Amino acid sequence: MEELQCGMSPIVGFRFTLNPMTDDFVAVIKGALEEVDTSAVWMHTDDVSTVIRGKQVHVFNVAKALALHAAKTGVHVALNGTFSAGCPGDTAGDAYLDKPDEPLNNDKTKQYVSSQFALYPMNNPDYMSVIYREVERAKERGVFNESMHYSSGIHGDIHDVFDFYEETFTHARSEEHRHLVMTVSMSINSPSHGGK
Amino acid sequence: MEELQCGMSPIVGFRFTLNPMTDDFVAVIKGALEEVDTSAVWMHTDDVSTVIRGKQVHVFNVAKALALHAAKTGVHVALNGTFSAGCPGDTAGDAYLDKPDEPLNNDKTKQYVSSQFALYPMNNPDYMSVIYREVERAKERGVFNESMHYSSGIHGDIHDVFDFYEETFTHARSEEHRHLVMTVSMSINSPSHGGK
Repeated sequence: MEELQCGMSPIVGFRFTLNPMTDDFVAVIKGALEEVDTSAVWMHTDDVSTVIRGKQVHVFNVAKALALHAAKTGVHVALNGTFSAGCPGDTAGDAYLDKPDEPLNNDKTKQYVSSQFALYPMNNPDYMSVIYREVERAKERGVFNESMHYSSGIHGDIHDVFDFYEETFTHARSEEHRHLVMTVSMSINSPSHGGK
Repeated sequence: MEELQCGMSPIVGFRFTLNPMTDDFVAVIKGALEEVDTSAVWMHTDDVSTVIRGKQVHVFNVAKALALHAAKTGVHVALNGTFSAGCPGDTAGDAYLDKPDEPLNNDKTKQYVSSQFALYPMNNPDYMSVIYREVERAKERGVFNESMHYSSGIHGDIHDVFDFYEETFTHARSEEHRHLVMTVSMSINSPSHGGK
């Protein structure tokens, strides 16, 4: 079946929910979606989540900018999502691959975030080695927080955290093993963060 | 390496965030965690998420009960999480496998939910066939909503939706392919649901 063949496409996608824990959640979500420059990615919002697609650099740049913008409201915000690349069932549509490589959102404001991630390298018999290697990378980058069931804790300044996520997403897939999934759950401005 | 061997354990886990979009989010979360009977699962909450572990029947029962309890507040709530079984890196700890099989939460109140799910059968070269088969199952069960990039939409009454999720989680793994991951993003009481 043609649909089962592994794609050669460089399209990266991120399907996520941005959940502000406030009565004014609509204003926070709309504010983030409107004020971030999303012109380098294809974007679609439905009744459950939002998906962005495009070059990897822009997908990570827009994801970080949305989180950072929502964080600036001071509200407790959760960002939950899945980064995907190389899915055999993926289509070439909605890709925006003709955009220049320059990131469009460059706000460097510092913001503490605590998050958890899991890597799922698909159809790769050696996938546990990939996961252990990338957890080591988090420790080397100074963003590792703690081990836990099913995930690894990653925290620090939002820019360091997203730099790690983009780096690990690059290195956990290969020409031979193209289909990679990475889940990220991020907590911002949480009363549980103990004043960090 | 012993840690890379595939486990024989029947432990199922669910790591999730419950995000009420209200200023009173702490009360909604604590209310759900306190009033649901979670005695049949091991549970731990950190600064980002909560994880429950135990027999499959109890993990799905508690997940549904938490969502339903939060839904009854009338607040817009998002439930995002990952069900896991058979991870080679998993431990035998925190399993609660000696509990009886009877579900402890049996509230049958109807509640519309809209959700999206993705299956990740690990280290299975035929994984795309598993995914296509389970999407067909959703259509047969009457809970399929729509196709989309990286996910499939599942909606309907919360009891039908969770029945489908538990059934598909059972069938998407096998003795040969034990490690299965399923992400679920669920939206409840959303203004985007158009009065459903």
